Amino acid sequence: MSERSYAILGTGALGGFYGAKLQKAGKNVHFLLNSDYEHASKFGLVIESKDGDFSLTQVNAYRDVEKMPQCDVVVIALKTTQNYLLPQMLPPVVKDDGVVLVLQNGLAVEEEVALIVGNVSIIGGLCFLCSNKVGAGHIRHLDYGQITLAEYANDYHPTGITEKMRQIASDLEDAGIPIILAEDLLLARWKKLVWNIPYNGLSVILNARTDELMSYFHTRNLVEQLMYEVAAGSKSCGRIIPDSFIQTMLDWTIKMKPYRTSMKIDYDERRPMEVEAIFGNPLRKVHSSCVDLPQIRCIYQQLKFLDETLTASKANFSL
Amino acid sequence: MSERSYAILGTGALGGFYGAKLQKAGKNVHFLLNSDYEHASKFGLVIESKDGDFSLTQVNAYRDVEKMPQCDVVVIALKTTQNYLLPQMLPPVVKDDGVVLVLQNGLAVEEEVALIVGNVSIIGGLCFLCSNKVGAGHIRHLDYGQITLAEYANDYHPTGITEKMRQIASDLEDAGIPIILAEDLLLARWKKLVWNIPYNGLSVILNARTDELMSYFHTRNLVEQLMYEVAAGSKSCGRIIPDSFIQTMLDWTIKMKPYRTSMKIDYDERRPMEVEAIFGNPLRKVHSSCVDLPQIRCIYQQLKFLDETLTASKANFSL
Repeated sequence: MSERSYAILGTGALGGFYGAKLQKAGKNVHFLLNSDYEHASKFGLVIESKDGDFSLTQVNAYRDVEKMPQCDVVVIALKTTQNYLLPQMLPPVVKDDGVVLVLQNGLAVEEEVALIVGNVSIIGGLCFLCSNKVGAGHIRHLDYGQITLAEYANDYHPTGITEKMRQIASDLEDAGIPIILAEDLLLARWKKLVWNIPYNGLSVILNARTDELMSYFHTRNLVEQLMYEVAAGSKSCGRIIPDSFIQTMLDWTIKMKPYRTSMKIDYDERRPMEVEAIFGNPLRKVHSSCVDLPQIRCIYQQLKFLDETLTASKANFSL
Repeated sequence: MSERSYAILGTGALGGFYGAKLQKAGKNVHFLLNSDYEHASKFGLVIESKDGDFSLTQVNAYRDVEKMPQCDVVVIALKTTQNYLLPQMLPPVVKDDGVVLVLQNGLAVEEEVALIVGNVSIIGGLCFLCSNKVGAGHIRHLDYGQITLAEYANDYHPTGITEKMRQIASDLEDAGIPIILAEDLLLARWKKLVWNIPYNGLSVILNARTDELMSYFHTRNLVEQLMYEVAAGSKSCGRIIPDSFIQTMLDWTIKMKPYRTSMKIDYDERRPMEVEAIFGNPLRKVHSSCVDLPQIRCIYQQLKFLDETLTASKANFSL
């Protein structure tokens, strides 16, 4: 059993699920919470899962990073909309020579982390997980759970499979989490965007589930065009996504159960959406080259309007 | 005073308003109605207008084109979504050597009319009118009213100012309707699309009024980008829209009273939207050339989804 300690920054549907799995497997885990802090301190965490329910009656719960021990692995499991907190949050909790594991959507977060903490390894994790927080300290895992890990180096230079990746993978696999190791983080992130950009964006703008988007001719076409634009963006960064990958994503989504995307859930719950991480950052990544992604730009601008008018209406609401 | 007789096909907010103005000015006008036929036959038409209210206690009302007299000028004042009716409607009512006046939005309707009736003049009219139907035979004219007229020739070849245009303009001006004569119908239609494409499309997709679209940075940018794509489409048809025209439209919309577009009203009232006339036809017009209008295509596909899901939900509703 490894001696690595884990800090989970953000104990929600994702961080709570993976952190609880790690603790259940005997790892030393420390949970940062906000609204659920009192509850989790007293009662621990409850996980309902298709792989078997379990509860942790006692967890190391914190509301303040300053009170947390420095950990070997710091897992960023916040929504990217809260990443403005990272410059305060990360430095106190991560050990020298430790690992920051970024379990977030979108692009370019690892670059931000690298600016905040030096002398650490940064590993990106792309989670393929359906889970919801259904109450305080209460998480419902619906399906999937796999994580693709890849290490970050300056300018997203591919690192291949590193020793740090293997160590983290080993801990996560001990906890029953399926892991894939990838050699090129930037390619892995662009590939995830092939799905996230069309479905997250259009589900919010058109108030639709994945099956609805795929069952109408024009949205199915638009989804495909957006996927090809993502591939063009990826290519402008020197990462080739084959057409066959796009066809696989389309076929797979058609066969998938009707799904409400995470961005749609955020929007419906009147929470800020991850527009910058999923749309803004990719657009800026290709900004310098001659490549244009006009339909992604169109979707981005529509989402910014919806995000900002939602924020404005919440402000009115609180007056 | 002219002897020209007028048939108004579609006695709604637009056709009812212009037709009533013509009759009030002494013209011989015949109104085709559908749901309001009984009411208008008994009680005539009531026009509330910022230029002065008036009512016509007696109008020539018809439910069936076969019962209408053949007229010198047949005004198409239906929504373009009902143009599938034109092959039945037009031939019985238009005189040989008569005029068909197309008071509709979008592009390419004149070509359809030319295929249905030969040996007539076809004039396109671009209406700049705010009016609503507020009850049976009851129309409220809120603002504006100007019509730009231009004659159609094969392949939208510019005709210059024709004698027929002057005659119709004279009748309309007698009725107090401000008229502009344009030499090139296709240019006039593309110029109108500079406004209609961004505002009609985005107002529906983003559930927003014009002032809301213009008060957020990203939608203001998106509106402008869409306008430039319309200009690129126009250019591919050999019609140049100067940048200054786009800036004028933007400035003018910022200064305008908050406005809910006609397409948004249709959508809110669960009526079919004029997606093909305003978006589909322009896209097909440039289809053969190398010009791409990706953001307009994106909006078009989003609107098709919204239009078709609305239709589908109405079908469910009636089960």
